[in-house]
Amino acid sequence: MIKEIAEHRTVRNYRPDSVPQEILDEILTAATRASTVGNMQMYSIVVSREKDKLAQLAPLHFNQPAVAAPVLLTFCADVSRFSRWCELRGAEPEYENLVWFMNAATDALLASQNAALEAEAHGLGICYLGTTLYNAGEIAEILKLPRGVIPIMTLSVGYPEVYPELTDRLPLDGVVHYEEYERYTNERLNDIWAEREATDETQKLLEINSLPNLARIFTDKRYTGADNRLFSEKYLTELRNKGFI
Amino acid sequence: MIKEIAEHRTVRNYRPDSVPQEILDEILTAATRASTVGNMQMYSIVVSREKDKLAQLAPLHFNQPAVAAPVLLTFCADVSRFSRWCELRGAEPEYENLVWFMNAATDALLASQNAALEAEAHGLGICYLGTTLYNAGEIAEILKLPRGVIPIMTLSVGYPEVYPELTDRLPLDGVVHYEEYERYTNERLNDIWAEREATDETQKLLEINSLPNLARIFTDKRYTGADNRLFSEKYLTELRNKGFI
Repeated sequence: MIKEIAEHRTVRNYRPDSVPQEILDEILTAATRASTVGNMQMYSIVVSREKDKLAQLAPLHFNQPAVAAPVLLTFCADVSRFSRWCELRGAEPEYENLVWFMNAATDALLASQNAALEAEAHGLGICYLGTTLYNAGEIAEILKLPRGVIPIMTLSVGYPEVYPELTDRLPLDGVVHYEEYERYTNERLNDIWAEREATDETQKLLEINSLPNLARIFTDKRYTGADNRLFSEKYLTELRNKGFI
Repeated sequence: MIKEIAEHRTVRNYRPDSVPQEILDEILTAATRASTVGNMQMYSIVVSREKDKLAQLAPLHFNQPAVAAPVLLTFCADVSRFSRWCELRGAEPEYENLVWFMNAATDALLASQNAALEAEAHGLGICYLGTTLYNAGEIAEILKLPRGVIPIMTLSVGYPEVYPELTDRLPLDGVVHYEEYERYTNERLNDIWAEREATDETQKLLEINSLPNLARIFTDKRYTGADNRLFSEKYLTELRNKGFI
Protein backbone atom coordinates (compact mmCIF):
# COMPACT_ATOMS: atom_id res chain seq x y z
CA MET A 1 0.00 0.00 0.00
CA ILE A 2 1.17 3.56 -0.62
CA LYS A 3 3.27 4.29 2.46
CA GLU A 4 1.58 7.59 3.35
CA ILE A 5 -1.88 6.00 3.06
CA ALA A 6 -0.94 2.98 5.18
CA GLU A 7 0.76 5.08 7.86
CA HIS A 8 -1.63 8.01 8.01
CA ARG A 9 -2.67 9.08 11.47
CA THR A 10 -4.12 12.27 12.82
CA VAL A 11 -1.55 14.46 14.54
CA ARG A 12 -3.00 16.91 17.07
CA ASN A 13 0.16 18.32 18.67
CA TYR A 14 2.81 20.14 16.68
CA ARG A 15 6.25 21.52 17.30
CA PRO A 16 6.40 25.30 16.72
CA ASP A 17 8.78 24.93 13.72
CA SER A 18 7.46 26.60 10.60
CA VAL A 19 6.91 24.76 7.32
CA PRO A 20 9.47 25.82 4.68
CA GLN A 21 7.92 27.58 1.68
CA GLU A 22 9.29 25.04 -0.81
CA ILE A 23 7.63 22.20 1.09
CA LEU A 24 4.38 24.15 1.35
CA ASP A 25 4.51 24.76 -2.41
CA GLU A 26 4.99 21.04 -3.00
CA ILE A 27 1.96 20.28 -0.80
CA LEU A 28 -0.18 22.86 -2.59
CA THR A 29 0.96 21.66 -6.00
CA ALA A 30 0.08 18.08 -4.99
CA ALA A 31 -3.39 19.37 -4.10
CA THR A 32 -3.85 20.75 -7.60
CA ARG A 33 -2.96 17.41 -9.20
CA ALA A 34 -6.18 15.82 -7.90
CA SER A 35 -9.03 15.26 -10.32
CA THR A 36 -11.37 18.21 -10.69
CA VAL A 37 -14.75 18.42 -12.40
CA GLY A 38 -14.24 19.48 -16.02
CA ASN A 39 -10.69 20.57 -15.09
CA MET A 40 -12.37 23.75 -13.82
CA GLN A 41 -10.64 23.75 -10.38
CA MET A 42 -13.64 25.14 -8.53
CA TYR A 43 -11.75 25.59 -5.27
CA SER A 44 -9.46 28.01 -3.53
CA ILE A 45 -6.98 27.26 -0.78
CA VAL A 46 -6.38 29.94 1.84
CA VAL A 47 -3.09 29.59 3.72
CA SER A 48 -3.02 30.96 7.29
CA ARG A 49 0.40 31.41 8.89
CA GLU A 50 0.36 34.87 10.47
CA LYS A 51 -0.06 34.87 14.23
CA ASP A 52 -3.06 37.20 14.33
CA LYS A 53 -4.99 35.24 11.69
CA LEU A 54 -4.27 31.95 13.44
CA ALA A 55 -5.42 33.53 16.70
CA GLN A 56 -8.67 34.66 15.08
CA LEU A 57 -9.32 31.24 13.58
CA ALA A 58 -8.50 29.18 16.68
CA PRO A 59 -11.72 29.86 18.66
CA LEU A 60 -13.80 29.12 15.54
CA HIS A 61 -12.23 25.67 15.65
CA PHE A 62 -13.11 25.55 19.38
CA ASN A 63 -9.44 25.98 20.34
CA GLN A 64 -8.90 22.26 19.82
CA PRO A 65 -5.22 21.33 20.30
CA ALA A 66 -4.75 20.65 16.57
CA VAL A 67 -5.54 24.25 15.66
CA ALA A 68 -2.27 25.32 17.33
CA ALA A 69 -0.37 24.51 14.13
CA PRO A 70 2.10 26.68 12.21
CA VAL A 71 -0.06 26.38 9.07
CA LEU A 72 -3.78 26.07 8.47
CA LEU A 73 -5.02 25.36 4.96
CA THR A 74 -8.69 26.21 4.47
CA PHE A 75 -10.08 24.45 1.41
CA CYS A 76 -13.03 26.35 -0.05
CA ALA A 77 -15.57 25.54 -2.72
CA ASP A 78 -15.12 28.44 -5.16
CA VAL A 79 -17.40 29.06 -8.13
CA SER A 80 -16.58 32.77 -8.04
CA ARG A 81 -13.24 32.78 -9.87
CA PHE A 82 -14.58 30.65 -12.71
CA SER A 83 -17.77 32.70 -12.96
CA ARG A 84 -15.85 36.01 -13.06
CA TRP A 85 -13.70 34.63 -15.89
CA CYS A 86 -16.84 33.59 -17.80
CA GLU A 87 -18.31 37.06 -17.40
CA LEU A 88 -15.07 38.65 -18.57
CA ARG A 89 -15.39 36.58 -21.75
CA GLY A 90 -19.04 37.44 -22.33
CA ALA A 91 -20.20 33.95 -21.30
CA GLU A 92 -23.11 33.54 -18.87
CA PRO A 93 -22.10 31.41 -15.89
CA GLU A 94 -24.75 29.71 -13.79
CA TYR A 95 -22.82 27.93 -11.09
CA GLU A 96 -24.43 29.37 -7.97
CA ASN A 97 -26.56 26.35 -7.24
CA LEU A 98 -26.60 23.08 -5.29
CA VAL A 99 -25.01 20.80 -7.86
CA TRP A 100 -22.07 23.16 -8.36
CA PHE A 101 -21.68 23.60 -4.64
CA MET A 102 -21.31 19.82 -4.51
CA ASN A 103 -18.96 19.72 -7.51
CA ALA A 104 -16.83 22.47 -6.00
CA ALA A 105 -16.83 20.86 -2.55
CA THR A 106 -15.73 17.61 -4.19
CA ASP A 107 -12.88 19.41 -5.96
CA ALA A 108 -11.82 20.98 -2.66
CA LEU A 109 -11.92 17.69 -0.73
CA LEU A 110 -10.02 15.62 -3.28
CA ALA A 111 -7.38 18.35 -3.36
CA SER A 112 -7.22 18.34 0.44
CA GLN A 113 -6.53 14.61 0.60
CA ASN A 114 -3.64 14.95 -1.84
CA ALA A 115 -2.29 17.79 0.30
CA ALA A 116 -2.62 15.67 3.45
CA LEU A 117 -0.70 12.74 1.97
CA GLU A 118 1.98 14.95 0.44
CA ALA A 119 2.47 16.74 3.76
CA GLU A 120 2.97 13.36 5.43
CA ALA A 121 5.52 12.41 2.76
CA HIS A 122 7.58 15.36 4.00
CA GLY A 123 7.48 14.22 7.63
CA LEU A 124 4.68 16.59 8.56
CA GLY A 125 1.56 15.67 10.50
CA ILE A 126 -1.95 16.77 9.67
CA CYS A 127 -5.35 17.01 11.26
CA TYR A 128 -8.65 17.56 9.45
CA LEU A 129 -10.68 20.19 11.27
CA GLY A 130 -14.33 19.30 10.71
CA THR A 131 -15.19 22.36 12.77
CA THR A 132 -14.80 24.30 9.50
CA LEU A 133 -18.40 23.43 8.65
CA TYR A 134 -19.71 24.48 12.06
CA ASN A 135 -18.41 28.05 11.87
CA ALA A 136 -18.11 28.45 8.11
CA GLY A 137 -19.69 31.92 8.11
CA GLU A 138 -17.33 33.29 10.75
CA ILE A 139 -14.31 31.70 9.06
CA ALA A 140 -15.43 33.16 5.71
CA GLU A 141 -15.46 36.63 7.26
CA ILE A 142 -11.94 36.32 8.63
CA LEU A 143 -10.62 34.97 5.33
CA LYS A 144 -12.62 37.63 3.43
CA LEU A 145 -14.36 35.11 1.19
CA PRO A 146 -16.68 36.70 -1.39
CA ARG A 147 -20.01 35.40 -2.66
CA GLY A 148 -19.55 32.03 -4.39
CA VAL A 149 -16.79 30.92 -2.02
CA ILE A 150 -17.49 28.86 1.11
CA PRO A 151 -15.22 26.95 3.52
CA ILE A 152 -15.43 23.17 3.28
CA MET A 153 -12.49 21.81 5.27
CA THR A 154 -9.36 22.93 7.06
CA LEU A 155 -6.13 20.99 7.30
CA SER A 156 -3.74 21.85 10.10
CA VAL A 157 -0.15 21.09 9.18
CA GLY A 158 2.99 20.97 11.28
CA TYR A 159 5.86 18.83 12.50
CA PRO A 160 4.52 16.26 14.99
CA GLU A 161 5.21 16.75 18.66
CA VAL A 162 3.43 13.52 19.50
CA TYR A 163 3.06 10.79 16.92
CA PRO A 164 0.02 8.71 17.85
CA GLU A 165 -0.76 5.07 17.16
CA LEU A 166 -2.62 4.03 14.04
CA THR A 167 -6.37 4.33 14.62
CA ASP A 168 -8.58 1.26 14.32
CA ARG A 169 -11.25 1.04 11.64
CA LEU A 170 -14.41 -1.00 11.22
CA PRO A 171 -13.82 -4.34 9.45
CA LEU A 172 -13.64 -3.82 5.68
CA ASP A 173 -16.79 -5.85 5.03
CA GLY A 174 -18.58 -3.54 7.46
CA VAL A 175 -18.40 -0.65 4.99
CA VAL A 176 -18.19 -2.39 1.60
CA HIS A 177 -21.16 -3.82 -0.28
CA TYR A 178 -21.17 -5.90 -3.44
CA GLU A 179 -23.67 -5.07 -6.19
CA GLU A 180 -26.41 -3.98 -3.79
CA TYR A 181 -26.49 -2.37 -0.37
CA GLU A 182 -27.04 -5.08 2.18
CA ARG A 183 -29.16 -3.84 5.07
CA TYR A 184 -27.43 -4.26 8.41
CA THR A 185 -29.04 -6.76 10.73
CA ASN A 186 -28.62 -6.36 14.47
CA GLU A 187 -26.27 -9.34 14.48
CA ARG A 188 -24.12 -7.76 11.79
CA LEU A 189 -24.01 -4.43 13.64
CA ASN A 190 -22.91 -6.25 16.77
CA ASP A 191 -20.12 -7.93 14.81
CA ILE A 192 -18.94 -4.76 13.10
CA TRP A 193 -18.61 -2.80 16.33
CA ALA A 194 -17.51 -5.66 18.63
CA GLU A 195 -13.79 -5.00 18.47
CA ARG A 196 -13.98 -1.27 19.14
CA GLU A 197 -16.54 -1.67 21.90
CA ALA A 198 -14.22 -4.09 23.68
CA THR A 199 -11.09 -1.90 23.75
CA ASP A 200 -9.57 -0.52 26.93
CA GLU A 201 -9.95 2.96 25.44
CA THR A 202 -13.70 2.49 25.15
CA GLN A 203 -13.91 1.17 28.71
CA LYS A 204 -12.02 4.22 29.96
CA LEU A 205 -14.35 6.56 28.05
CA LEU A 206 -17.41 4.92 29.56
CA GLU A 207 -16.02 5.28 33.09
CA ILE A 208 -15.04 8.94 32.62
CA ASN A 209 -18.43 9.80 31.16
CA SER A 210 -20.54 7.46 33.31
CA LEU A 211 -22.31 6.15 30.24
CA PRO A 212 -23.33 2.55 29.53
CA ASN A 213 -21.98 2.18 25.97
CA LEU A 214 -19.92 3.73 23.20
CA ALA A 215 -22.90 4.77 21.07
CA ARG A 216 -24.10 7.00 23.93
CA ILE A 217 -20.68 8.72 23.99
CA PHE A 218 -21.34 9.82 20.43
CA THR A 219 -24.99 10.82 20.79
CA ASP A 220 -24.84 12.31 24.31
CA LYS A 221 -21.37 13.85 24.40
CA ARG A 222 -19.58 14.28 21.10
CA TYR A 223 -22.24 15.02 18.51
CA THR A 224 -25.50 15.85 20.18
CA GLY A 225 -28.80 16.45 18.44
CA ALA A 226 -28.86 20.07 19.63
CA ASP A 227 -25.41 20.73 18.12
CA ASN A 228 -26.28 18.91 14.90
CA ARG A 229 -29.42 21.02 14.46
CA LEU A 230 -27.59 24.25 15.28
CA PHE A 231 -24.67 23.61 12.90
CA SER A 232 -26.98 22.42 10.11
CA GLU A 233 -28.96 25.64 10.40
CA LYS A 234 -25.78 27.73 10.45
CA TYR A 235 -24.32 26.03 7.37
CA LEU A 236 -27.59 26.37 5.51
CA THR A 237 -27.54 30.10 6.30
CA GLU A 238 -23.99 30.40 4.98
CA LEU A 239 -24.90 28.48 1.80
CA ARG A 240 -27.64 31.06 1.27
CA ASN A 241 -25.31 33.99 2.10
CA LYS A 242 -22.82 32.79 -0.45
CA GLY A 243 -25.46 32.32 -3.13
CA PHE A 244 -25.39 28.52 -3.44
CA ILE A 245 -29.05 27.96 -2.62
CA MET B 1 6.13 14.37 -4.81
CA ILE B 2 4.30 11.12 -4.10
CA LYS B 3 4.57 9.30 -7.42
CA GLU B 4 0.86 8.50 -7.77
CA ILE B 5 -0.10 12.11 -7.05
CA ALA B 6 2.43 13.54 -9.51
CA GLU B 7 1.50 11.08 -12.27
CA HIS B 8 -2.27 10.99 -11.79
CA ARG B 9 -4.30 11.33 -14.93
CA THR B 10 -7.85 10.46 -15.78
CA VAL B 11 -8.15 7.20 -17.73
CA ARG B 12 -11.32 6.90 -19.80
CA ASN B 13 -10.63 3.72 -21.77
CA TYR B 14 -10.00 0.38 -20.13
CA ARG B 15 -8.95 -3.08 -21.19
CA PRO B 16 -11.60 -5.68 -20.36
CA ASP B 17 -9.33 -7.46 -17.85
CA SER B 18 -10.92 -7.80 -14.44
CA VAL B 19 -9.33 -6.46 -11.26
CA PRO B 20 -8.08 -9.28 -9.00
CA GLN B 21 -9.90 -9.48 -5.65
CA GLU B 22 -6.70 -9.04 -3.63
CA ILE B 23 -5.92 -5.79 -5.44
CA LEU B 24 -9.50 -4.59 -5.01
CA ASP B 25 -9.26 -5.37 -1.29
CA GLU B 26 -6.06 -3.36 -1.08
CA ILE B 27 -7.77 -0.40 -2.80
CA LEU B 28 -10.78 -0.60 -0.49
CA THR B 29 -8.58 -0.94 2.60
CA ALA B 30 -6.62 2.14 1.47
CA ALA B 31 -9.94 3.97 1.26
CA THR B 32 -10.70 3.15 4.89
CA ARG B 33 -7.34 4.53 6.08
CA ALA B 34 -8.41 8.09 5.19
CA SER B 35 -9.39 10.44 7.99
CA THR B 36 -13.05 10.24 8.97
CA VAL B 37 -15.09 12.52 11.23
CA GLY B 38 -14.96 11.18 14.78
CA ASN B 39 -13.69 7.85 13.36
CA MET B 40 -17.35 7.14 12.63
CA GLN B 41 -16.84 6.11 8.97
CA MET B 42 -20.07 7.60 7.76
CA TYR B 43 -19.76 6.12 4.28
CA SER B 44 -20.41 2.95 2.36
CA ILE B 45 -18.71 1.79 -0.81
CA VAL B 46 -20.78 -0.22 -3.29
CA VAL B 47 -18.74 -2.33 -5.70
CA SER B 48 -20.32 -3.00 -9.11
CA ARG B 49 -18.75 -5.75 -11.22
CA GLU B 50 -21.65 -7.85 -12.49
CA LYS B 51 -22.54 -7.26 -16.12
CA ASP B 52 -26.21 -6.50 -15.54
CA LYS B 53 -25.53 -3.98 -12.77
CA LEU B 54 -22.89 -2.24 -14.87
CA ALA B 55 -25.33 -2.16 -17.77
CA GLN B 56 -27.99 -0.57 -15.57
CA LEU B 57 -25.58 2.04 -14.23
CA ALA B 58 -24.02 3.00 -17.58
CA PRO B 59 -26.90 5.12 -18.93
CA LEU B 60 -27.15 6.94 -15.58
CA HIS B 61 -23.57 8.02 -16.22
CA PHE B 62 -24.66 9.06 -19.74
CA ASN B 63 -22.80 6.10 -21.25
CA GLN B 64 -19.56 8.06 -21.12
CA PRO B 65 -16.61 5.94 -22.27
CA ALA B 66 -15.17 5.73 -18.75
CA VAL B 67 -18.23 3.90 -17.45
CA ALA B 68 -17.25 0.87 -19.53
CA ALA B 69 -14.90 -0.28 -16.77
CA PRO B 70 -14.66 -3.70 -15.11
CA VAL B 71 -15.27 -2.11 -11.70
CA LEU B 72 -17.32 0.85 -10.53
CA LEU B 73 -17.00 1.98 -6.93
CA THR B 74 -19.89 4.15 -5.76
CA PHE B 75 -18.94 6.11 -2.66
CA CYS B 76 -22.00 6.99 -0.60
CA ALA B 77 -22.57 9.23 2.38
CA ASP B 78 -24.06 6.81 4.93
CA VAL B 79 -25.50 7.89 8.28
CA SER B 80 -27.78 4.86 8.34
CA ARG B 81 -25.36 2.19 9.58
CA PHE B 82 -24.14 4.38 12.43
CA SER B 83 -27.67 5.41 13.37
CA ARG B 84 -28.92 1.80 13.42
CA TRP B 85 -26.04 0.87 15.71
CA CYS B 86 -26.94 3.78 18.04
CA GLU B 87 -30.56 2.65 18.16
CA LEU B 88 -29.49 -0.91 18.89
CA ARG B 89 -27.60 0.43 21.92
CA GLY B 90 -30.47 2.58 23.16
CA ALA B 91 -28.77 5.82 22.06
CA GLU B 92 -30.72 8.46 20.13
CA PRO B 93 -28.97 9.32 16.86
CA GLU B 94 -29.73 12.58 15.12
CA TYR B 95 -27.61 12.50 12.00
CA GLU B 96 -30.22 13.00 9.32
CA ASN B 97 -29.43 16.64 8.72
CA LEU B 98 -27.30 18.94 6.56
CA VAL B 99 -24.16 19.03 8.64
CA TRP B 100 -23.99 15.23 8.82
CA PHE B 101 -24.68 14.94 5.15
CA MET B 102 -21.61 17.13 4.66
CA ASN B 103 -19.55 15.21 7.22
CA ALA B 104 -20.50 11.92 5.59
CA ALA B 105 -19.87 13.24 2.07
CA THR B 106 -16.45 14.41 3.26
CA ASP B 107 -15.71 10.96 4.67
CA ALA B 108 -16.75 9.39 1.36
CA LEU B 109 -14.65 11.74 -0.78
CA LEU B 110 -11.47 11.48 1.27
CA ALA B 111 -11.84 7.70 1.12
CA SER B 112 -12.35 7.86 -2.66
CA GLN B 113 -9.13 9.81 -3.20
CA ASN B 114 -7.15 7.22 -1.25
CA ALA B 115 -8.78 4.52 -3.37
CA ALA B 116 -7.90 6.38 -6.57
CA LEU B 117 -4.24 6.74 -5.64
CA GLU B 118 -3.95 3.16 -4.41
CA ALA B 119 -5.52 1.87 -7.64
CA GLU B 120 -2.93 3.82 -9.60
CA ALA B 121 -0.16 2.34 -7.47
CA HIS B 122 -1.28 -1.07 -8.81
CA GLY B 123 -1.08 0.04 -12.44
CA LEU B 124 -4.80 0.67 -12.73
CA GLY B 125 -6.41 3.78 -14.19
CA ILE B 126 -9.32 5.64 -12.70
CA CYS B 127 -11.94 8.16 -13.68
CA TYR B 128 -14.14 10.14 -11.33
CA LEU B 129 -17.73 10.10 -12.58
CA GLY B 130 -19.28 13.38 -11.49
CA THR B 131 -22.48 12.19 -13.14
CA THR B 132 -23.15 10.38 -9.85
CA LEU B 133 -24.65 13.60 -8.48
CA TYR B 134 -26.84 14.16 -11.53
CA ASN B 135 -28.66 10.85 -11.28
CA ALA B 136 -28.17 10.06 -7.61
CA GLY B 137 -31.78 8.99 -7.09
CA GLU B 138 -31.76 6.51 -9.98
CA ILE B 139 -28.35 5.16 -8.92
CA ALA B 140 -29.60 4.79 -5.35
CA GLU B 141 -32.50 2.68 -6.61
CA ILE B 142 -30.25 0.33 -8.55
CA LEU B 143 -27.85 -0.04 -5.63
CA LYS B 144 -30.83 -0.41 -3.22
CA LEU B 145 -29.66 2.38 -0.92
CA PRO B 146 -31.92 2.87 2.11
CA ARG B 147 -32.84 6.16 3.81
CA GLY B 148 -29.73 7.86 5.20
CA VAL B 149 -27.52 6.68 2.31
CA ILE B 150 -26.92 8.80 -0.81
CA PRO B 151 -24.44 8.51 -3.70
CA ILE B 152 -21.67 11.13 -3.71
CA MET B 153 -19.10 9.96 -6.25
CA THR B 154 -18.26 7.00 -8.46
CA LEU B 155 -14.78 5.84 -9.37
CA SER B 156 -14.38 3.70 -12.45
CA VAL B 157 -11.38 1.42 -12.20
CA GLY B 158 -9.62 -0.71 -14.78
CA TYR B 159 -6.39 -1.39 -16.63
CA PRO B 160 -5.70 1.50 -19.02
CA GLU B 161 -6.24 0.94 -22.72
CA VAL B 162 -5.08 4.46 -23.50
CA TYR B 163 -2.82 6.31 -21.11
CA PRO B 164 -3.35 10.02 -21.69
CA GLU B 165 -1.00 12.94 -21.14
CA LEU B 166 -0.89 14.79 -17.85
CA THR B 167 -3.59 17.47 -17.79
CA ASP B 168 -2.63 21.11 -17.37
CA ARG B 169 -3.73 23.06 -14.30
CA LEU B 170 -4.14 26.74 -13.53
CA PRO B 171 -0.96 28.34 -12.15
CA LEU B 172 -0.59 27.58 -8.42
CA ASP B 173 -0.97 31.24 -7.41
CA GLY B 174 -4.24 31.25 -9.34
CA VAL B 175 -5.90 29.05 -6.72
CA VAL B 176 -3.90 29.75 -3.54
CA HIS B 177 -4.40 32.80 -1.32
CA TYR B 178 -2.31 33.92 1.63
CA GLU B 179 -4.07 35.06 4.82
CA GLU B 180 -7.04 36.60 2.99
CA TYR B 181 -8.87 35.85 -0.24
CA GLU B 182 -7.59 38.24 -2.87
CA ARG B 183 -10.36 39.25 -5.26
CA TYR B 184 -9.50 38.46 -8.86
CA THR B 185 -9.02 41.52 -11.06
CA ASN B 186 -9.67 41.21 -14.79
CA GLU B 187 -5.94 41.38 -15.41
CA ARG B 188 -5.31 38.53 -13.01
CA LEU B 189 -8.06 36.41 -14.58
CA ASN B 190 -6.52 37.00 -17.99
CA ASP B 191 -3.14 35.85 -16.64
CA ILE B 192 -4.50 32.76 -14.92
CA TRP B 193 -6.29 31.50 -18.01
CA ALA B 194 -3.82 32.71 -20.66
CA GLU B 195 -1.92 29.45 -21.06
CA ARG B 196 -4.97 27.22 -21.41
CA GLU B 197 -6.76 29.61 -23.72
CA ALA B 198 -3.75 29.59 -26.04
CA THR B 199 -3.42 25.81 -26.44
CA ASP B 200 -4.02 24.00 -29.73
CA GLU B 201 -6.63 21.88 -27.94
CA THR B 202 -8.62 24.99 -27.08
CA GLN B 203 -8.35 26.29 -30.64
CA LYS B 204 -9.65 22.99 -31.96
CA LEU B 205 -12.57 23.07 -29.52
CA LEU B 206 -13.53 26.56 -30.62
CA GLU B 207 -13.51 25.55 -34.29
CA ILE B 208 -15.56 22.39 -33.72
CA ASN B 209 -18.13 24.27 -31.66
CA SER B 210 -18.06 27.56 -33.61
CA LEU B 211 -17.69 29.51 -30.38
CA PRO B 212 -15.51 32.56 -29.79
CA ASN B 213 -13.78 31.51 -26.53
CA LEU B 214 -13.18 28.73 -24.04
CA ALA B 215 -15.51 30.13 -21.37
CA ARG B 216 -18.41 29.80 -23.82
CA ILE B 217 -17.55 26.10 -24.31
CA PHE B 218 -18.22 25.61 -20.61
CA THR B 219 -21.34 27.75 -20.30
CA ASP B 220 -22.96 26.93 -23.67
CA LYS B 221 -21.93 23.30 -24.20
CA ARG B 222 -20.56 21.42 -21.22
CA TYR B 223 -22.38 22.73 -18.18
CA THR B 224 -25.37 24.79 -19.22
CA GLY B 225 -27.63 26.75 -16.92
CA ALA B 226 -30.58 24.52 -17.80
CA ASP B 227 -28.64 21.37 -16.85
CA ASN B 228 -27.29 22.95 -13.67
CA ARG B 229 -30.79 23.92 -12.54
CA LEU B 230 -32.21 20.49 -13.41
CA PHE B 231 -29.48 18.53 -11.60
CA SER B 232 -29.60 20.83 -8.57
CA GLU B 233 -33.33 20.26 -8.30
CA LYS B 234 -32.88 16.50 -8.70
CA TYR B 235 -30.17 16.25 -6.05
CA LEU B 236 -32.21 18.37 -3.66
CA THR B 237 -35.11 15.95 -4.14
CA GLU B 238 -32.86 12.99 -3.41
CA LEU B 239 -31.47 14.68 -0.29
CA ARG B 240 -35.07 15.01 0.87
CA ASN B 241 -35.92 11.41 -0.10
CA LYS B 242 -33.02 10.11 1.90
CA GLY B 243 -33.90 12.21 4.94
CA PHE B 244 -30.94 14.60 4.95
CA ILE B 245 -32.99 17.80 4.71
